[in-house]
Parts: sequence; C-alpha cells; structure tokens
Amino acid sequence: MRKNIIGAVFLFATGFAINAQTLKSPDGKFEMNFQLKSGVPYYNLKYQGKTVVEDSKLGLRLLRDGDIQFASEIERKDQNGKDLNDGFTKTAEKFDSKNESWNPVLGEKKSYVNHYNELAVTLNQPANDRHIIIKFRLFNDGLGFRYEFPEQKNLNYFIIKEEDSEIDLAADMKTFWITGDYDSQEYQYQETKISEIPARWPKSYDGNASQTPIKNAIQIPTMMKWEGKTPLYLNISEAAVINYPTANVEVDAVNYKLKTHLTPDAQGAKGYIQTPAVSPWRTIIVSPKAEEVLDSKMIFNLNEPTHYTDTSYIKPTKYMGVWWEMIIGKSQWAYSTANNVHIGKTDFSKLTPNGKHAANNDKVKQYIDFASKHGFDALLVEGWNVGWEDWFGHSKEFVFDFVTPYPDFDIKMLNDYAHSKGIKLMMHHETSGSATNYERWADKAFQLMNKYGYPSVKTGYVGNIIPRGEHHYSQWTINHYFRIAEKANEYKIMVNSHESVRPTGQSRTYPNWIAAEAARGTEFDAFGGNNPDHHVILPFTRFMGGPMDYTPGIFQTKLDYYFPGDTRYVKTTLAKQLALYVVMYSPLQMAADLPENYERHLDAFQFIKDVAADWDDTKILAAEPGDYIHTARKAKSKDEWYIGGITDENARTFTVDFSFLPKGKKYQATVYEDGKDADYINNPQSYNIYRKTVTSASKIPVKLARSGGYAISVKPL
Amino acid sequence: MRKNIIGAVFLFATGFAINAQTLKSPDGKFEMNFQLKSGVPYYNLKYQGKTVVEDSKLGLRLLRDGDIQFASEIERKDQNGKDLNDGFTKTAEKFDSKNESWNPVLGEKKSYVNHYNELAVTLNQPANDRHIIIKFRLFNDGLGFRYEFPEQKNLNYFIIKEEDSEIDLAADMKTFWITGDYDSQEYQYQETKISEIPARWPKSYDGNASQTPIKNAIQIPTMMKWEGKTPLYLNISEAAVINYPTANVEVDAVNYKLKTHLTPDAQGAKGYIQTPAVSPWRTIIVSPKAEEVLDSKMIFNLNEPTHYTDTSYIKPTKYMGVWWEMIIGKSQWAYSTANNVHIGKTDFSKLTPNGKHAANNDKVKQYIDFASKHGFDALLVEGWNVGWEDWFGHSKEFVFDFVTPYPDFDIKMLNDYAHSKGIKLMMHHETSGSATNYERWADKAFQLMNKYGYPSVKTGYVGNIIPRGEHHYSQWTINHYFRIAEKANEYKIMVNSHESVRPTGQSRTYPNWIAAEAARGTEFDAFGGNNPDHHVILPFTRFMGGPMDYTPGIFQTKLDYYFPGDTRYVKTTLAKQLALYVVMYSPLQMAADLPENYERHLDAFQFIKDVAADWDDTKILAAEPGDYIHTARKAKSKDEWYIGGITDENARTFTVDFSFLPKGKKYQATVYEDGKDADYINNPQSYNIYRKTVTSASKIPVKLARSGGYAISVKPL
Repeated sequence: MRKNIIGAVFLFATGFAINAQTLKSPDGKFEMNFQLKSGVPYYNLKYQGKTVVEDSKLGLRLLRDGDIQFASEIERKDQNGKDLNDGFTKTAEKFDSKNESWNPVLGEKKSYVNHYNELAVTLNQPANDRHIIIKFRLFNDGLGFRYEFPEQKNLNYFIIKEEDSEIDLAADMKTFWITGDYDSQEYQYQETKISEIPARWPKSYDGNASQTPIKNAIQIPTMMKWEGKTPLYLNISEAAVINYPTANVEVDAVNYKLKTHLTPDAQGAKGYIQTPAVSPWRTIIVSPKAEEVLDSKMIFNLNEPTHYTDTSYIKPTKYMGVWWEMIIGKSQWAYSTANNVHIGKTDFSKLTPNGKHAANNDKVKQYIDFASKHGFDALLVEGWNVGWEDWFGHSKEFVFDFVTPYPDFDIKMLNDYAHSKGIKLMMHHETSGSATNYERWADKAFQLMNKYGYPSVKTGYVGNIIPRGEHHYSQWTINHYFRIAEKANEYKIMVNSHESVRPTGQSRTYPNWIAAEAARGTEFDAFGGNNPDHHVILPFTRFMGGPMDYTPGIFQTKLDYYFPGDTRYVKTTLAKQLALYVVMYSPLQMAADLPENYERHLDAFQFIKDVAADWDDTKILAAEPGDYIHTARKAKSKDEWYIGGITDENARTFTVDFSFLPKGKKYQATVYEDGKDADYINNPQSYNIYRKTVTSASKIPVKLARSGGYAISVKPL
Repeated sequence: MRKNIIGAVFLFATGFAINAQTLKSPDGKFEMNFQLKSGVPYYNLKYQGKTVVEDSKLGLRLLRDGDIQFASEIERKDQNGKDLNDGFTKTAEKFDSKNESWNPVLGEKKSYVNHYNELAVTLNQPANDRHIIIKFRLFNDGLGFRYEFPEQKNLNYFIIKEEDSEIDLAADMKTFWITGDYDSQEYQYQETKISEIPARWPKSYDGNASQTPIKNAIQIPTMMKWEGKTPLYLNISEAAVINYPTANVEVDAVNYKLKTHLTPDAQGAKGYIQTPAVSPWRTIIVSPKAEEVLDSKMIFNLNEPTHYTDTSYIKPTKYMGVWWEMIIGKSQWAYSTANNVHIGKTDFSKLTPNGKHAANNDKVKQYIDFASKHGFDALLVEGWNVGWEDWFGHSKEFVFDFVTPYPDFDIKMLNDYAHSKGIKLMMHHETSGSATNYERWADKAFQLMNKYGYPSVKTGYVGNIIPRGEHHYSQWTINHYFRIAEKANEYKIMVNSHESVRPTGQSRTYPNWIAAEAARGTEFDAFGGNNPDHHVILPFTRFMGGPMDYTPGIFQTKLDYYFPGDTRYVKTTLAKQLALYVVMYSPLQMAADLPENYERHLDAFQFIKDVAADWDDTKILAAEPGDYIHTARKAKSKDEWYIGGITDENARTFTVDFSFLPKGKKYQATVYEDGKDADYINNPQSYNIYRKTVTSASKIPVKLARSGGYAISVKPL
C-alpha cells in the first residue's frame, strides 16, 4: 500500500508539476493555482484557504498573426489569426521573489514596499511552434498577472482581436461600478450586486461630450465587497497600460464572471503588438479590511521604475484657477461673439468681444493677487488662447495652436506679474480631442511654456478623438498620452491630463504625469451633479491607479447664489470639501472656488492653505466603500499631520484616534467640522472650527452631517 | 398674336433669367447652361452646338450640418443633416472673365494662358436660410465647376455624406479607365465603352499593398473618345483637391452617367467642412483633337497662384538611383537578416548583415561616380536608413525615424563625396503609410536633409495609412500630403511623393511638390507588368493634373538577364524608353536602370543625358489615346528641341515635321529609333542612331516597332 501511496503521490506530484503550479504570497495568506486544462490556461485565487476567484480562463484571440499580404485583408470581417488561448503545454516555470522599497517622486508615503513572490509559466503552442509566458505576482495584498510575448521566430507581429482574461468570482458580490465605455469615465457610480448589473446597466449613464458605452460591461478599477460573516474587499483593476488599449470587463451576471474587453481602434482591432511585448497587469487586490485596499500600492509596484534622469522639476502643486466661473456659466472661455474662427487666419483683435471672457488681464491679475497672497504655487488660466469660439462639437482638427493668446491676455506681462508675486501660471492645453493637432504643436507649445516660465500644464480631451474613429482609450490614444508625457519631460514640464485615460500606476515610470482627471470630478456638480457617496467610492476605484485632479474646495456649494432659481448645487457640506484634500490623494490640488467665496470664509480656507500635497506617511484610519473614509497623512519633511473624514448621504459619528502621532510630543490640532445643524442640502455652509492640544494618546469625537466631513490640521505646539 | 408672342417671349425670357443662365467660352464654341428644375441645380455642356453633357444634377448630401451635441451621434447610421441638393432658388448670378498668362516655376511651357468666362450662381435654400454658390468657368478647352460655401449664420460647420455631382454624357463613349479605389492608382488601364464598364470591372484590378476597390466606380482623370464622323475627345478630372477628399466616379452604364463618389474616412464621413470653403473643381476638357487635350492646362489654371515667397530652390532634377536593383530583386533595402527591429532600441551594428544591402558605402560611391560622370543632378539612395527589416505588412506605426543610417551608410562621407563630384544625393522617406509617424519626424528629417545638403526627397506611402481606417485619398491624408509639402518648403526642399494622391494641378500653388508617382509606374514592369499601351494612355489621364515620376530609362528590359528563366520584362523597346522622357512630362526624371546597362549602350544613353526636364514650349505633334503620342519640346532657355514618339502594341509609321523650329536656322538632329527588326518581346534592344541636319522645312520618317518609339535631340549646328 505504501508503494501505491508513494506512487500516487509521485503521479500526483508529477502530474501537478507538469500541468499546474502553486504560488503563495510572502505571508502565505494568498494562494494562486495555475493549471492547464486540456491545453487551456486557468488560474484561481484563495485567501486564507477560501476561494475568492474560481478557476478562470486566460488567453487571447488574434485577428492576424502574420504578415498582412494585402493590407485590405485586415478589414475583412472574417479575418482570424491563430489564437493564443489553447493548445498549450507548459514547458517551463520559474519562481522568483522581490522585497524592495522604492521612493516615489511624489506620493502618499515617502517609501513604498514592493514585496511579492512570482511565478512565470512558459506555455508552448506546439501546433504553431510559438510560446508565451504568463507571469503571476502574489503580494500580501493580492494578485497581479500579465501575458508576455517574447521575440521569437513564429511570433513577431500580431493583432489582437480580443483579450479574454477572466475573473470568475466565487460569489455574488456588492459592486461599485461605472458603465463600460471606450471614451468616458464621467459617470455616476452604481452600487449593485454583480447579478444586478445587466438590469441596472441601461440606466447607469447620462450624456457626455464623447462616449461609447459597452453593453453589460463595466470599467476597471471596480470595487467589490463579499459580504457575510467574514467579509472580503476586492479591487479589480489593471496596472501599466502602456502601448496597449484600456480594458473594460464584460459581466456574466449569472456566473459572477468578469472578462476583459479591450478598447478597439477605428477598424475594430484591439492591439497591434510587436514582440518582445507584455500586456498590462490584471490586478486583484483582496483584504478583509477596506482600509488595506486603500493602502495597497500594488498597481504602482507593478509598474517599472522611472528612466527619467532628472525629476527635480516635479513638485507638489497647490493651485487656484480662472475656471470655476466658466464652469458654472458666469463667464466664458471664448473672447468674442464669433462662432466660426480660423486659427492663423482670423484676426481676433477685430472680432467683437463678448464681454464675458474671463481670461483677461485685469481678472487674471486679481486672481494672481489672491492666490499669491494665500500662498498658492500656481494659477490655472483657461481660455487664454485663441480658438474657443468654436472649439467644441465640430470635429475640428486644427482647433487650437496652443501659442496665440487672445488680445486681452498679455502673456508676458501676466507671467512677469505672477512671478513678481511669487507664483507661477499653470498652462492650459485643451485639445478638443484633436490629438493629431496637439502633437503637431506640442514642441512649440512647450517651448512657449519654457519661455514664460510655466512649470505645469493641464491638458484636456473634450470631444471625440482625432484620428477619427480612435477612442479615448484605444491603443493609439494611450500611446499619444505617453508621447506627450515623454515630450513634456524633455521640457521639464508636469502634466495634469483631463478626459484622458485613467492612470494605472504609471506615475512610477513617468513621474511628471502627476495627475489626471479621467473620472467625474467637481465640474459635474455644475452639470448633472455628483451623488453624495461619489467621494466615498472614488478612492476605492479611480484613485487606486494614481492621483485624480478632483478639483475640490467649493465653498459656495449652491449655485443659486449666482443665478436665482438655479437648482444646481455641490452635494456636500463645506467641511466635507476640506476633508477631500486629505481623503483624495493628489500631489496637484486645486482650490477650485472663486476668490470671493474664500474671502467670505477665510477661517475655513486656512485649512486649504495649510494642507500639504506630498506625504511622508498615510494611515487609513477607517473606511467602508460607499459609506465613509477617514484618513491621516504626514506632510513630507514636516512634523505636521492632516486628517480628513467624509461620509455619504448618511450622517455619522467617528472617533479620531491620534495614536499615529509620535509619542511624548504635543501638537496643536485645528478641527474644521460640520456645524451642529449642517446638512449638505439645507445648510451646507454651517461649520465649526476649534483648536485643541493633542498627543498620541488623544481621541477626538467628530460628527459628520449628511454628505459631510471634517478636516484637522496638526502642527507642533 | 404678336402680343401673345411677345408675352410668351417675355415669360420665357423672365422664366429663363430666374431659373437658368447661359455661359459661353471666350471663343464661343462651348456653351454651358445652368438651371434649377424644381429647386434642383442642373448644368449641361455643348460644343459647337452639339450636346456633350446632358442636363446633369449637382448637390451634396450631408451627414451633419450643425453642432455635434453628443459626439457619439456622428457614428449613428441614421444620421442625416439637411442636404444641400434641393429646395434652392437662384438669388444672384455674377459673370466674370479672365485672360492672363502666368509662368509656372517648372513646366511644359514658359508661360500658360488662363482664359475663361465665369458664371457664379448663388443658390439660396429658404427652408434652411442658407446659401451656396456654384461657380462655372468655361475655357476654350472646356468646363470647370465647383461649389463654394460662404461663411454665414446658418452654414458654419458641416460633414459631407456624399457629393453627388453628375456628368451625364450624351453617348456611349470609349473610355480609358482604372478601377475606382480609395487607396491605390496602380492598376492597368482598361479600354471599354462606358456601357461595358460593370462587366469589365471585376477583372480590372490585381493585388496591391493597399487597396480598397469601389464597385462599378472608376478613377478620375479618365479619358474618353466619342467616336463617329466628327469625334470628340473628353478628359474628366478634378482640380485643386485641397482639404477635401479625392473623388472617384460611380458609373451608370445604362445612362452613360458618372457621379462623384468621395473617399471616406475611418467612420464613413466624406469631408469635414468649415466655411468659408470651396470644393475642388470638377473638370471636363473637350476637343475634336486629342492633341489639344494633352495641351490643356485647365487643371493648373484652376489652382491658385503660389503664396511661396522664394521658389529659387525649385529646379529640374535628372537623377539616377540605388533602386532598380532592389525592385528586380538583385539586392535588398534591408541591411540585416532580422525580421523584427525596434527603432531607437535595436543596435543595428550588432545584427547579421544579409550581404545584399544595396545602400552601402562602396556601391553608393560607384553610383555617384557614374551619375556625376554622366552629368546627372542627383542620386537617389533607398534603404539608407534603419527599419527596412520589417517595414511592410505589420501596420507598424513607429516604422522609421528618417534620421538614422544603417551601419554601412556613412551619410556625411557620401554626401561630401557626392558634392565633390558635383552631384547631390536625393533623400528617401518611405513612410510605409504611417503618416502620423512621418509628421512626428518631419522636422528632424528635413533638418538632417539641410545639414547634409539634400535638395529633394522621394517620399513613399506603401501600405495602409496610419491613422488606421483613413485611406490614401481621404481628406485627412490629403491634408497630410499638403502639410508635408508646406513644411518642406520651410526647409527649401522639393518633394516627389510615391503612392500618394495624384496631383490635381496644385503644382501652381505648391511648386516644391514637383512630382508624384501616384499611378502604375516602371516598377510594375518588375511586378505584374505594364501593358504596351500603358504609356500611350497615361499622358491622357494621370499626367493631366501634374507630372509623374514614371522612372523610365530601362535598357535591360528583359529580366532573365539577371535571373535565368525569369519571364518578367519591360514591355517596350529600348528606343521607346528614350521617348518617354519627352512624351511623359516631369521636371524630375530618373534614368532608372543600373549603370552597367547604360555602360553597354552609351550611345543610346546619350539621349537621356541630353534631354531637358524643363521647357519653354511644347507641341503635341500627333496623339491618339491608347495608340500613339508624338511630342516636341523646347528646352528652357536653350535653343534645343527634344522630340519623342511612342506607340502601343501596334507597329506604326510617322513623319516628324520640324516646322516648329525657327525658320532659316540649321540644327543637328540626332535620331534614336527602333532598329528594323526591333520588337518589344523578341528584340527590344535593337535600335539605330543617326544624325541629320534639319531646318524648319525638314520632315523625317520614323518607323515604330511594336511598343516602340523614337527620340530626337535637336541642337544648333
């Protein structure tokens, strides 16, 4: 019998070693099992012995895997290459591990830990005499995996029809999601079970300047909670989307299965690959603690270290802007009453001014005065350059030149004035989606920035992409964003991209791409409105791959202040707006409101003036997706801490425990909290500010109003 | 009764004046009648009282004529704007005329005459409160017309679904045509009646690196002959295709009607228009003499004068090339055996040379020696730059950088060497259709040219266009070609574009765009072969809008000379190759064969060395499309004439009448003719050269072999 047992074990081990492999996380809590079933690759994921992701298929279908003999063939609908999804044998596996620290140029902590065990399986496809590698990295916070396509005789060029990476979840989970789309991320979050997604999907999105919704698909990052006695929190996303299209995921609501759905190009192809190449990492963060999900740096860890030789120009930036007054409709980006202008031909000085152009010399100087007085680093000015008269809705390729100011914007005088006041202007490059045009002008545009001392630029991609037919998240457009980031680095310029693709951790590799909007931000409070729980979901989703320029800080939340009868309002209390500076990490933070509103609440404004944007350390004190987040952060190179807490549409209480402070030291905490009668609808501007001496032993109770919050600055006594 | 007649005449005249208008050519032979029939615009064309073009409809259908509210709407198949094709009333007509001479920078004559009568009708569309203008110009050689879209309140931006300009021919005519296509012009000409086009269409094209044939459509220029007792020759084309897509024409074979069919973009849209704007001119040249069609300069006359301030760098260029040996397969463009290279990453010096790379230092120097010894202006070198290993068939965007030479091409040494020998190198920019990539590198590429003294560049667009989904003749790509020409002008560089759009007379406006291939050229003799009548058709079609870099001069017409058993051959005699330099006008002319073949026939080579490429005058001595062309040209600023005659697959005789020479002067004519037994299949290299003194009274008989020809140089005694 012993022989049989040994034999069985041997057979089992051999069989297992031939077709399957197990990987564990450094702390042993996660287990990933890879195996081939009839030549098809599968993986699963267990946490503490519990299956979180059931056996899930991997693979890609190819549109074309050889030379294009006659290029018109690529457009034939029946084209199919030999797929990379079955007929595999495992010919090698290689284990590896890493445990390192690395310092982000700007970040939530001074140093991030990158600790994983890795398994790379080499899969050969004998029928086609070619092989790929699937690489798995198991961290103490979850799994990342990607495909690698080594350069080899029979795999040099191929075109992806679709990547079919599945995540077959073990149960029906509560999911925070937005509509799958090739062009927009500016949707309200939905909170449903996986099984309810198809029913909710048709109602999940409203209109947008550029959108291509995908039926029954949702975007990633997505956040999930497997409820029950021992809940688990999951974040599903991707890391390092470079030279590859963005993935959405199709939802199989019956089997709780997600499958990647890549963004196509103008012809429906989903990726042009030249080996050696790698896919992005598909990431699954799992934790029993929601706080640990927010604390995860897996997505950044999966990106490559930077190749930049000089990062000294990359700095945290707090800014104000000539912007909100246009968003709410008080003024305009355009200078004149014309609706048809030709860049390079139209003499703008001869047009009739509309009298509402915000980016004029006098107004900009006033903003400069205010921003510099209150210690901001920069002032964004939108509408400074010619072309806004017909910038949108016409698929106009040569829509801006990025170098010619309007007649009432003296670019030299204003920059000199700003610099004399110790502040820089922030450049604005709205591309109108016309990426080809932006690339044509980028060198001249960046040279202009260098000439006048602009250290940073906010870019925009409002409207459909040109090349027409490409999408905001197609491979071509992804490459465009990276070309711009790389070129900006040549000019030592920081980039903050709006309506671009969401970040997937590439700030590690391209640290000058310091932020992006790429989600529904504050401006939508002036359009359709953001739900009160929007802010307690976004950090679990959009922010997981990198900072968002959410542009918080609206003190005058109700817009009927400007326009009697206007029903638009920002759905938070004023105190919650302060908390956003801590809860929503970005090295680029805007105080988005008009100076006059800050003037009326200079006491509350003090928090915004004080709060840092770059951090030595971050502690997620407490968090529940969709409900509340409480965060504490230590300012970089300062003995200061900033704490922020926010809630959804429910009022809540919380106790701030200061045990993260160094022991034996006294600090002054300034607490900015919702007033007793504060309410985001009825009384948003009710707040209370008080001071208190604290030590590491202190605890402060806070009450959060409906869609309310609190912020605390902590400085040495 | 008189009152009734007067009344009737008055009513007729009034009705006629309200809805119709007549335009006549300066010499009165042509008559164009415009009218509105139930609000729909029509025109017709008569020559000497005979209707050539029956009432033909005009108009455009629009995809969208207002703002794109949500950009995704543009892709909805049911989108329709309000069309610009009916509901018109004529609110104005304006007559004008012009009679001017203008001097082309390089041309067939020193001076071209631009003489026309013009009628501009303003058509209002009351339902939409907007108007357009249709402008007609009637020359002594035919009609041109175009649409004009003035800037106005209700017409600022629109997107064309299709232009529906019809040419309703009066009879079934013999037509010389190639397959309608969005991407290629490299097809063999078909000679059929209009009524036979649909039957022939499926057999009219072979494979191409990039092609998108359009069923039952043909390309323009197309050449027609209305046979009969008093035949008429027609050429139908377009002029000034700028910021607009190229037109093919759909053929209604029953009604002998052609209708414009524009080239779409990736999404099927056919033109993005911002007013004020104009369409290209649709041109109909008509003459009882084929010679006069070849002599017509209407297409150039319809283009705008140049805005270039300095054209001194634009010169006629006779060149040789490191090229034919790659085309026939004797050597390669690529340097190494690799099939997968990464520009900017691959170290080409570490790759294994394939031993067949033609653009190497030693070989290029040999070509320089030969070309300079024989008085050529330039030497083209293809394959000088890294990237040829995988340049084709992969839809590779970053396929070339246009600035990095291969390890065996010393760019500095070779240019110095060439200059020391009195010759320049000609740059080569094969884009592989990747237009976005070429635009990214254009400045650096042109700077490199300036640095090393390259005055001209041959560009290429082999393969599908990137932005993917655009076509070679889409509006976006047309604009790309013009961006390149304009940028080249900044660097004082001449451009010769291959696989680009065919010229439509824009050399008047952009004189540095001196030639294009944009048709099936000599290289196809090494691919599928060019028919013997190809050369007696092309001047009536492709050449009508501008020069073609046909690259003639192949002396070793049969390729079994290199590869025993090879059945490929150039389907002409050697003497016909000489004649092409005269019959096919281009200011840029290649002696395309290998030096060793010229060495073996230095006596015949002398004609190529002598022939000019820029002209004071041109006389079409005799011509019949598809059969024969005999042309005489006077070299610019020289008392020299060059004569060339060619035939199709039929042997012919001809008498060259020298009456174009100045009277009372003696010249030495050197005649290069087919030998008595010459034949393009059996004995192509049989030729005879003799000298003869001639005066204006002389006549020389010539015998042309099958696909044969003759060339004569005439210099003062």
